Amino acid sequence: MAAIIEPRTLKGFRDFLPPQEIERRSLIEKIESSFRSFGFVPIDTPALEYAAILLGKGGGETEKQVYRFKDNGGRDVALRFDLTVPFARFVAQYKQDLVLPFRRYHIAKVWRGENTQRGRYREFTQCDIDIVGSNSVAADFEILLVIRNTFRALGLDVNIRLNHRGLFNRFLSHIKAAEQSVEILRIVDKLAKVGEEETRTALAEITGEGAERILEYINCRGTFGETLEALTELAGGPCPESGRLAALRSCMKDTGTEDSFVLDPSITRGLDYYTGIVYETFLNDDPSIGSVCSGGRYDNLAGLYSKDQISGVGTSIGLDRLIAALESLGKVEGRSGYTVLAITWGGDQEAGYRQALAEKFRAAGIPCETLLEENTGPGDKAAAGKALTRQFIQAEKKGIPWVLIPPEGGAAGFTLRDIRARHNREVSDIRELIKIVRPATGC
Amino acid sequence: MAAIIEPRTLKGFRDFLPPQEIERRSLIEKIESSFRSFGFVPIDTPALEYAAILLGKGGGETEKQVYRFKDNGGRDVALRFDLTVPFARFVAQYKQDLVLPFRRYHIAKVWRGENTQRGRYREFTQCDIDIVGSNSVAADFEILLVIRNTFRALGLDVNIRLNHRGLFNRFLSHIKAAEQSVEILRIVDKLAKVGEEETRTALAEITGEGAERILEYINCRGTFGETLEALTELAGGPCPESGRLAALRSCMKDTGTEDSFVLDPSITRGLDYYTGIVYETFLNDDPSIGSVCSGGRYDNLAGLYSKDQISGVGTSIGLDRLIAALESLGKVEGRSGYTVLAITWGGDQEAGYRQALAEKFRAAGIPCETLLEENTGPGDKAAAGKALTRQFIQAEKKGIPWVLIPPEGGAAGFTLRDIRARHNREVSDIRELIKIVRPATGC
Repeated sequence: MAAIIEPRTLKGFRDFLPPQEIERRSLIEKIESSFRSFGFVPIDTPALEYAAILLGKGGGETEKQVYRFKDNGGRDVALRFDLTVPFARFVAQYKQDLVLPFRRYHIAKVWRGENTQRGRYREFTQCDIDIVGSNSVAADFEILLVIRNTFRALGLDVNIRLNHRGLFNRFLSHIKAAEQSVEILRIVDKLAKVGEEETRTALAEITGEGAERILEYINCRGTFGETLEALTELAGGPCPESGRLAALRSCMKDTGTEDSFVLDPSITRGLDYYTGIVYETFLNDDPSIGSVCSGGRYDNLAGLYSKDQISGVGTSIGLDRLIAALESLGKVEGRSGYTVLAITWGGDQEAGYRQALAEKFRAAGIPCETLLEENTGPGDKAAAGKALTRQFIQAEKKGIPWVLIPPEGGAAGFTLRDIRARHNREVSDIRELIKIVRPATGC
Repeated sequence: MAAIIEPRTLKGFRDFLPPQEIERRSLIEKIESSFRSFGFVPIDTPALEYAAILLGKGGGETEKQVYRFKDNGGRDVALRFDLTVPFARFVAQYKQDLVLPFRRYHIAKVWRGENTQRGRYREFTQCDIDIVGSNSVAADFEILLVIRNTFRALGLDVNIRLNHRGLFNRFLSHIKAAEQSVEILRIVDKLAKVGEEETRTALAEITGEGAERILEYINCRGTFGETLEALTELAGGPCPESGRLAALRSCMKDTGTEDSFVLDPSITRGLDYYTGIVYETFLNDDPSIGSVCSGGRYDNLAGLYSKDQISGVGTSIGLDRLIAALESLGKVEGRSGYTVLAITWGGDQEAGYRQALAEKFRAAGIPCETLLEENTGPGDKAAAGKALTRQFIQAEKKGIPWVLIPPEGGAAGFTLRDIRARHNREVSDIRELIKIVRPATGC
């Protein structure tokens, strides 16, 4: 007999058992449904691409983390590490086939060989939306509204903190610090992590006395209107960027959603490619979890792969962090199956009859399973068999609320067991049974 | 300016544009719904695993095709090439946490560096179900019924051709050819591909005059009952295997599904690990497409990773081949989006109002998008803008049946455009609008 190979997964990779995978699928279905209700349509791209395409910009942290190798044909390939780079390539490649403005969603796994400390995984799921080919305020606002509505559909109220990178850059020009803008943005992006003192020191090193004015800018707080007024003044007066923030504020008022949004000049998002609004999303139930959804507007998505300039706005929900948040808030559904009715085991000679019975419930839209004899090998006659109590326990473990015991040997009527109430009742026909169990399907 | 990188995908890998991805998602949703209605629950496993685990048995065609490499930590890893091997590892690893008998489904991508001729892809999707921990006839029959029902849910009637490997082996023992059984099975499995003469020659080489008797066995045709009788006689008389086929036949009768099944002794499935029934599935509309779903019963799923013997029965639908079949039969839905109503563009100053209007339809369960000004960059003021005819064309391209034109400047009433009929009508209020457009959602 061959040696046994120990069953295990790679560090940072996870199996999902049914209760976890049911939860994941349920969340994805709700997120998808929300995206679709706004007109976003799905795309998919390969897990594996030419490394030169995925790593176009090269260098940096990303390159060290990526799973990159030579395939059997000697090609230099890599697993995608996000959904943004493949989307940029996709837009450049199929621009002629897309109706612009184009709303796409993409929910898929990505891979990064990250340090697995601090609950990071090497395989994780992203849920991305973008609107490309429109520079309108309407597009910016729509992404913000989708974020708000999607989290509400998950039973979560959020606080979306937004800012405008262009207005911040105009302010930097105004204080003659425009040339250091990339570095300043990176320092400011770490404010929440490192604290104000360290940020002041870092800013002073590159901007001298500008540091105080930058801190004054990013510390502005108040209502949306008050903050906007203060920032506009600090940036040298009304400008297109302050106008766009004012227009967004009107959209919030018109839709009665002002309570979900805060203008927060300390939000900058570290990534270079954002040029317009940027935002992060916090759960009202526990803001300390950190941002669960962030994004922004960019001027030039596909510049690496195309001469055409394509602007857009988008966001990304990290599913794994979201699930961790729901778990810590006690907001997971905890379902372990989909069926609401189980039919007891009656031996193989009854299998056809009981399956035919189950089909009547399925045809009525009621997920229904037949309980099976348990035996682990062809020689094993172990009697999980007919003992009803064992079958009730099995149904309970699977979270099935109802168990149906068909009549023995030609008798009439059924016995229906309510698993939670531990109570049996007699029911004469199937139509009646369907009426009783249907509410458990939630329809 | 940096050089442009040509946007392209690897050979054998595909992007899915919205119409294709919508079709894929729609099929997956129907398949999932069918699986769930029987009590199957989802799991997921990592795309990447230790190569030693995935390639346990080693050697053969599979090993040459697998994407295998060293990760940054020097681990020998590989992309999964099917969902069966990860499931075997999974069952061995979590046996204690699973309620046996256990029904699982897994719909996911797998990767093989196959020859890309003959329409094969290197990244493709499998839809697998298995019932493990039950050796019952009921479990065998359930898998067969799931196959039948799932294809019916997709609008396809199928013919499931089944056989029993154990009965065939008993027949081989009876004619004293048991020792060559593995080789004989492989030869017989190729019958449809290479024809009878070549099969006869190959069989004669290893079994001499046994070849004619084997051909007699695998050529048995008739009703299920007639074929079963003939095979039973050729195998030396009634035995547990012929009894199981008879029990399956009873299940078919009890459920009124006999018309979907054929007992076909030429079906053997080449894989070594099947020990009980085996089956292949053909579309009635075009059997020449070949089997779209196959599987069988096995005695020992997880033997590589566990000392426990776990038997089961399962099947796998290849989504990509299924889609190719649906396309060739003209049975694809061809949807290009989910929204049934589009609201016209009214400039950024109207964005909030029109989004608030869209929210009323979404709240009523009607997917609704707002049409956006098209411009590809912040400097581009190109007037896709307000021209209604351009907006109607855009809605038509997206397959949206209704377009709503809100009143100008405080006037009352709405204009609703039926895109297919190219006809406008005046509608006074939103309740009325919802009534008119709801049927387009299919609910």
